[in-house]
Amino acid sequence: MLAQVEKWDFFEYSLPYQGSDNPFLDVTLEATFVHSNSQVRVSGFYDGGGVFKVRFMPSQEGVWQFVTCSNIPVLDGQQGEFLCVAPSANNHGPVRVFNTINFAYEDGMPYLPVGTTCYVWNLQGDELEEQTLETLRRSPFNKIRMCVFPKRYLFNRNEPPCYPFPGEVTQIWDANVERAYRSSEPPQYWDFSQFNPQYFQRLEKRILDLRTLGIEADLIIFHPYDSGAWGFDRMPVEVNQRLLRYLVARLSAFRNLWWSFANEYDLFIGRTIEDWYQYMQLVQQIDPYNHLRSIHNCGAFYDHNKPWVTHCSIQSQAVGRVPSWLEKYHKPVVIDECGYEGNISMVWGDLSPEEMVMRFWLGFTQGGYVGHGETYLSPDEVLWWSKGGQLKGESVPRIAFLRSIFEHAPMLTPFKKLDMEYLDLLNPEVSGNLFGAPAGGDKIIAEGGWNHEVGGYNLEHGYYLFYFGMRQPALRNFNLPDGKYRIDLIDTWNMTLETVAENAMGQTSIELPTRKFMAIRIHRNFDS
Amino acid sequence: MLAQVEKWDFFEYSLPYQGSDNPFLDVTLEATFVHSNSQVRVSGFYDGGGVFKVRFMPSQEGVWQFVTCSNIPVLDGQQGEFLCVAPSANNHGPVRVFNTINFAYEDGMPYLPVGTTCYVWNLQGDELEEQTLETLRRSPFNKIRMCVFPKRYLFNRNEPPCYPFPGEVTQIWDANVERAYRSSEPPQYWDFSQFNPQYFQRLEKRILDLRTLGIEADLIIFHPYDSGAWGFDRMPVEVNQRLLRYLVARLSAFRNLWWSFANEYDLFIGRTIEDWYQYMQLVQQIDPYNHLRSIHNCGAFYDHNKPWVTHCSIQSQAVGRVPSWLEKYHKPVVIDECGYEGNISMVWGDLSPEEMVMRFWLGFTQGGYVGHGETYLSPDEVLWWSKGGQLKGESVPRIAFLRSIFEHAPMLTPFKKLDMEYLDLLNPEVSGNLFGAPAGGDKIIAEGGWNHEVGGYNLEHGYYLFYFGMRQPALRNFNLPDGKYRIDLIDTWNMTLETVAENAMGQTSIELPTRKFMAIRIHRNFDS
Repeated sequence: MLAQVEKWDFFEYSLPYQGSDNPFLDVTLEATFVHSNSQVRVSGFYDGGGVFKVRFMPSQEGVWQFVTCSNIPVLDGQQGEFLCVAPSANNHGPVRVFNTINFAYEDGMPYLPVGTTCYVWNLQGDELEEQTLETLRRSPFNKIRMCVFPKRYLFNRNEPPCYPFPGEVTQIWDANVERAYRSSEPPQYWDFSQFNPQYFQRLEKRILDLRTLGIEADLIIFHPYDSGAWGFDRMPVEVNQRLLRYLVARLSAFRNLWWSFANEYDLFIGRTIEDWYQYMQLVQQIDPYNHLRSIHNCGAFYDHNKPWVTHCSIQSQAVGRVPSWLEKYHKPVVIDECGYEGNISMVWGDLSPEEMVMRFWLGFTQGGYVGHGETYLSPDEVLWWSKGGQLKGESVPRIAFLRSIFEHAPMLTPFKKLDMEYLDLLNPEVSGNLFGAPAGGDKIIAEGGWNHEVGGYNLEHGYYLFYFGMRQPALRNFNLPDGKYRIDLIDTWNMTLETVAENAMGQTSIELPTRKFMAIRIHRNFDS
Repeated sequence: MLAQVEKWDFFEYSLPYQGSDNPFLDVTLEATFVHSNSQVRVSGFYDGGGVFKVRFMPSQEGVWQFVTCSNIPVLDGQQGEFLCVAPSANNHGPVRVFNTINFAYEDGMPYLPVGTTCYVWNLQGDELEEQTLETLRRSPFNKIRMCVFPKRYLFNRNEPPCYPFPGEVTQIWDANVERAYRSSEPPQYWDFSQFNPQYFQRLEKRILDLRTLGIEADLIIFHPYDSGAWGFDRMPVEVNQRLLRYLVARLSAFRNLWWSFANEYDLFIGRTIEDWYQYMQLVQQIDPYNHLRSIHNCGAFYDHNKPWVTHCSIQSQAVGRVPSWLEKYHKPVVIDECGYEGNISMVWGDLSPEEMVMRFWLGFTQGGYVGHGETYLSPDEVLWWSKGGQLKGESVPRIAFLRSIFEHAPMLTPFKKLDMEYLDLLNPEVSGNLFGAPAGGDKIIAEGGWNHEVGGYNLEHGYYLFYFGMRQPALRNFNLPDGKYRIDLIDTWNMTLETVAENAMGQTSIELPTRKFMAIRIHRNFDS
């Protein structure tokens, strides 16, 4: 009987071979998988202990056959087959860009990214890592940003359980090394001609743990929080390229994988924008499954219009700019870092829970996605944002509530101030328009900037959402287009949703409770 | 014995004459006031009932002599004198621009504008007007925006007690006429060749009432909230010019007068930007006392760099842009409208008190000034923002607290993200810098926009102020320059100030309570 593998799970084939001093460099191994008209070529990788592996994620049901190709005769021409069966209930395939600015799983189910960040949760030892997984299981998060490499930074002083390359650390800078940048060369600890398979086995175990929880692993390949202490941020180009090939060979068969090429790419020293272009293009070329690709800024944005970028992964505290980024890039906008809920001494980690939740609503209402992080001071230095552990903040339940709202929302387009649909919807004879100006509203954008009241809509679905942030209107007036509408009042902080009108038509006034953090949802009754 | 007039009070001289059918057009009257080397020429005006008046505000103590000049023999060549004596304790003269971006009274005392808006409080009848004055007396406000002309708008349906021109209203639009703009011509109600002195007597009584309370009258000459119902927003150019001359003749001797040429100048129809230039230039030319001159936008800003503009009077909800406006205009920045505390259905009148107070702190900390207004729904339609009456909101006591802080602050310069003084002050080895980026902070400005943590400083005074808004840091680290410092923790919402360090030096950590709306004040001890 053939081995059975679910669609979008992976098939793994092992080949023993011990005849090389450095199998990472000496041996080439590929396999071609064939299914009726489909043919997919994947790279194998050396997994240590004299074992090579080939992994493959099938995206079509039925029998797949494969044959290997290698410069080593004993690894060459090996053949086999397996049966790809229907996916199980919680397996929807990899996430893809859908509808230009949104996401969906490959089976068509919409995917709403509600992400968090735990940069190196996977390098904290089993006890803490298991706790993190348990916390994630009970959380609203379905995406997590995490790093391939260990991190050396504030609140990140511990060494990882092992290292990605063979070698031994003989001196570790003892304080504040994130600002050191002492040399443009990495230290001489490592044999960069090989990998440490154990390190990557740990990594992939955790990615698969996330897969079990239905969480996408937004895997950050490079980051600058090393500062030359280990030197993983300043390896030679050929080592970086070999790493990328190794990661693709090992990990790309995991359906919940996203490639994030860097965190704060613009903080690296000695790496040009062309280097980043080449790394992303290389993976675009060799990843058989075309996983999502992004790169995350500190200050200056990467050019997200580049064709190898699938979506914008943004750091910015100005979440109100989602509409302008959507317009500029025509790709999904994910603000992976808008600041974190917490109380540390940096402005990127001291948001009140109210501010964190407000930023989520501002972003999502306008058709973007916002990511969470948590940085509460803790004597054990276990801050969620980098090590995982337990969530302590007040924003998480509100983010779960937000997710429950937006998972039932159609795709939203942000209102612009002079958007005719918008102005038609509002009832200017009674309320003035939303932006307070009987004329010249476009000029307000130019000079006055964004403000906290935002809206998004989907005309096809007759769906309108308005979020009021720190405003507290007691009344909003609408001029509803043809049809009957249900109107819900949402308290985004107290997590309540109340239907305040059924079958509303035409000119409609909605009363609100003169309270912060409210939203109004208007939805056409298609059954009436 | 000579009549005695305080410096910066006004001397008034009346001249009877009844020989003209239209004294407003037929009679010219001026007077020249002389004091040693000074000579000031002022215009007289007809005050009705056969009486002409000349008013003069002396700015030098001692004897002033005057002589009139008129095309009417009986009004010509009249002479007199009075004695200008020292000002009383609460009289500091008119407010002037000081130190490029700040204000001071003419006697040198700093003036911190803490303004509110009650557009037509002066046209509501004595009972309500007296209540407004009593409310103002107990308030923190020392500036008020108010209109010459009556207002027809939402919540402003009542006719004024009288009209600025002789005539009779024969038809008043009965609803929503602020959006009517039915004709580019004013209706035929008025004799624009004359004024109604009674109307202006009421106006000047109220300006003098404000003067008694130490409140500057930021007098809005033109506004568009008429929409042709009365037509005062679309009078012929020569009527507008005559009005300006009449206002200067009547009112410019009042030391607490500021000229605001328009509210939302960009919403007028049939008036070009050149018209506005000419009106402001005319007053610049004929006002003997050079009162402050500004003009207020709805959307597009007026060019505040024009030499006849003394300060920026801004409408914008983006108070975080104060630093860019200071840099662009090199004049005081007064955000007279950043939105109002209230709960009406428009975004310019639905700010929570927390948001209103936050905008004040954001603006003031960065060297600008922010104005208040209040728009809570009320069955009697008496909303503070237009009619005055009573204040109901929660922001006012916090604004009083803010005033108490900033009245003791030196002039502040906003920190910019790459400001070297700023980066020196912070302790990057411990905290990272304030903006979270070890490098490339300027790029954050370009892409990420302003955020809620702001600071201002005065190096000469060794004074630093940081405001945290919706952030809740538990810690901030500073690298204090030479000297010893007192450090105060300010809760801007709960209105407390606590000294948390005396004689602090060098690297200093300040603990905060993980709470919103906090500020830190750092002040060098010059006596230590």
